[in-house]
Amino acid sequence: MTTPSPSPLARAQALEAAGRAIIHMEVGEPDFPTAEPIRRAGHQALQEGRTRYTAAVGIPELRQAIAGYYRSRDGITVPPGRILVTPGASGALLLATAVLVNAGDQVLLADPGYPCNRHFVALLDGEPVGIPVGPDTGYQLTPELVARHWGERTVAVLLASPANPTGALIPPHQLAEIIAIAERRGGRVIMDEIYQGLVYGDPVVSALTLSDQHFVINSFSKYFGMTGWRLGWLVAPEGYGREAEKLAQNLFLAPSTLAQYAALAAFTPEATAIFESRRRELQARRDYLLAQLIDLGFQIPVTPQGAFYLYADCSRFTQDSHRFALDLLEHTGVAITPGIDFGRFQPERHVRFAYTTGLEQLAEGVARLRQALG
Amino acid sequence: MTTPSPSPLARAQALEAAGRAIIHMEVGEPDFPTAEPIRRAGHQALQEGRTRYTAAVGIPELRQAIAGYYRSRDGITVPPGRILVTPGASGALLLATAVLVNAGDQVLLADPGYPCNRHFVALLDGEPVGIPVGPDTGYQLTPELVARHWGERTVAVLLASPANPTGALIPPHQLAEIIAIAERRGGRVIMDEIYQGLVYGDPVVSALTLSDQHFVINSFSKYFGMTGWRLGWLVAPEGYGREAEKLAQNLFLAPSTLAQYAALAAFTPEATAIFESRRRELQARRDYLLAQLIDLGFQIPVTPQGAFYLYADCSRFTQDSHRFALDLLEHTGVAITPGIDFGRFQPERHVRFAYTTGLEQLAEGVARLRQALG
Repeated sequence: MTTPSPSPLARAQALEAAGRAIIHMEVGEPDFPTAEPIRRAGHQALQEGRTRYTAAVGIPELRQAIAGYYRSRDGITVPPGRILVTPGASGALLLATAVLVNAGDQVLLADPGYPCNRHFVALLDGEPVGIPVGPDTGYQLTPELVARHWGERTVAVLLASPANPTGALIPPHQLAEIIAIAERRGGRVIMDEIYQGLVYGDPVVSALTLSDQHFVINSFSKYFGMTGWRLGWLVAPEGYGREAEKLAQNLFLAPSTLAQYAALAAFTPEATAIFESRRRELQARRDYLLAQLIDLGFQIPVTPQGAFYLYADCSRFTQDSHRFALDLLEHTGVAITPGIDFGRFQPERHVRFAYTTGLEQLAEGVARLRQALG
Repeated sequence: MTTPSPSPLARAQALEAAGRAIIHMEVGEPDFPTAEPIRRAGHQALQEGRTRYTAAVGIPELRQAIAGYYRSRDGITVPPGRILVTPGASGALLLATAVLVNAGDQVLLADPGYPCNRHFVALLDGEPVGIPVGPDTGYQLTPELVARHWGERTVAVLLASPANPTGALIPPHQLAEIIAIAERRGGRVIMDEIYQGLVYGDPVVSALTLSDQHFVINSFSKYFGMTGWRLGWLVAPEGYGREAEKLAQNLFLAPSTLAQYAALAAFTPEATAIFESRRRELQARRDYLLAQLIDLGFQIPVTPQGAFYLYADCSRFTQDSHRFALDLLEHTGVAITPGIDFGRFQPERHVRFAYTTGLEQLAEGVARLRQALG
């Protein structure tokens, strides 16, 4: 990451260590504990001694459970042989980029976007090509943008829906068009669906419903609330499963055994009820914070439809969002993330608010902001 | 890996699924369950809700505990700031190579060696330079070999002591000389010490006692018996800690939280007593299997001092060790690993026996081998 020091995150931790009451709107992890059915399954797995290596691509039961998730959620059949369980979505992203990217290859991605993405491409000596996106395209890449930037050296476009930091979705017809463009150009889509379970309007479906030729990434961290367990998965296109499996053997050996057995409980009705209740809670937080921030004078021209972030234009208050975030932290104890963490397109006029903390804390944060900015 | 299909490992699994009683001398994971103090600590961590992200480089308590391990074991002070907890030693290896290797850079390593090593280098568009080693150099790289192969493009030499598949150690004076060579050439040593706790003669000390300018990799999987938990660590040289930390943030986010809290129990006297008892059991297995294999006609000219492998010259029986391993498996149900899994230097005349299964199983395996080969 290219965050100039001192980073607001490190400063927030230092202030908190010194006794300040910090309102955390910078943290990309909801305040919910891992759901009880999953923790129970974790205890059981420990009791049963599930602590040895599994297959590199995960235990068959979990790969089948993930296939079952697509069957019931999206109405599609994904062969378990294409599903690779990974150490977090980070592991899935590494596999997908390692399979696709050779030295000099370009990968298109939205700017702003999840900051780690470009580092995976750069690690493999590829070139991440950030394409500026703003309110005019709903903070997402469009078929036009993808077609315009797709060059000789482009091998893939990385999409995220909902996206971090904007919470923006890609409309299904646009996604279908982007997929068609990639296929015409002989390239691939790397589809980040880790926030897909956390959508607050009409449910969205996986890109797997549109094509089986692309790389789809998901995670047990977000909707399923298993952050610290470090478990995700990759759905590889037909014909890439074996190559991705070999890479997983070499790069990871295997994902965490306990996490895999615990994750089997993530697909039970009991766990799903908990996740859905949490999704509604997150929606209430989004609705509250969105209205309050707009009332305060932040501009959020496109309503974020998912994830747990609001990406706000703060140009009414500052032309230097990094300074703004640090000042807010010092003077109000409210921690937010400056735009520079997410890309190079107008970072100085944007900040990200995460609604990963409870409504009461959010209200306290808003009150402090109102006093400072009002 | 360049294993030709069908791999003996896959075939062993297929035969076992079909009901055959297989003697597993191919598995790189001892048959011990995770030690009870660690499992207890895992339960406790789960009860306390330790399931959220930690810092990318691990919890401070564990970094301090690892520093304490070096203090008591090797009598040295390693600043916790140089210790990065990683998702397995695999994660540590990825960090070290990602920090060091750019496109076209060469990394020297022993052939035979751990097969994943060269894949990490290749992933980063580096060039792994396998240097043949045999009985004449104790199956390890020597200062002479390193000096002779160090070229314009060489940035590092990767050493493992004890090594997989040979169980061979690097004598301390030779290690010191190799380190001096690397430093004179402006390069680094990547030191794999994951089997260092499993040595059956005089105890060996960490390369950290010799220099603080190199990358040292260790693991909770081998001596500490936490294979499926996927936890390891990297000690980065002074001045590289911050760069490695940024990489860890981007590539992993964090290692498993539960595994980290459980691993704190790995340094207790109670756990250490269990590990030492297991080490003695492994030594008894090595002593037994080594004598039996030599009696059967395998050549093992250098006594393996550590890890849980015997790398045996099988040229008395075959000039095609891959075929030999498959035939043994089919006819006797004994699974071993052919040399081709470990490199390109005389793989056809070598096989690896792992003594990761109990003495009774080993004796049954030896009896079957004797019948087939005797």
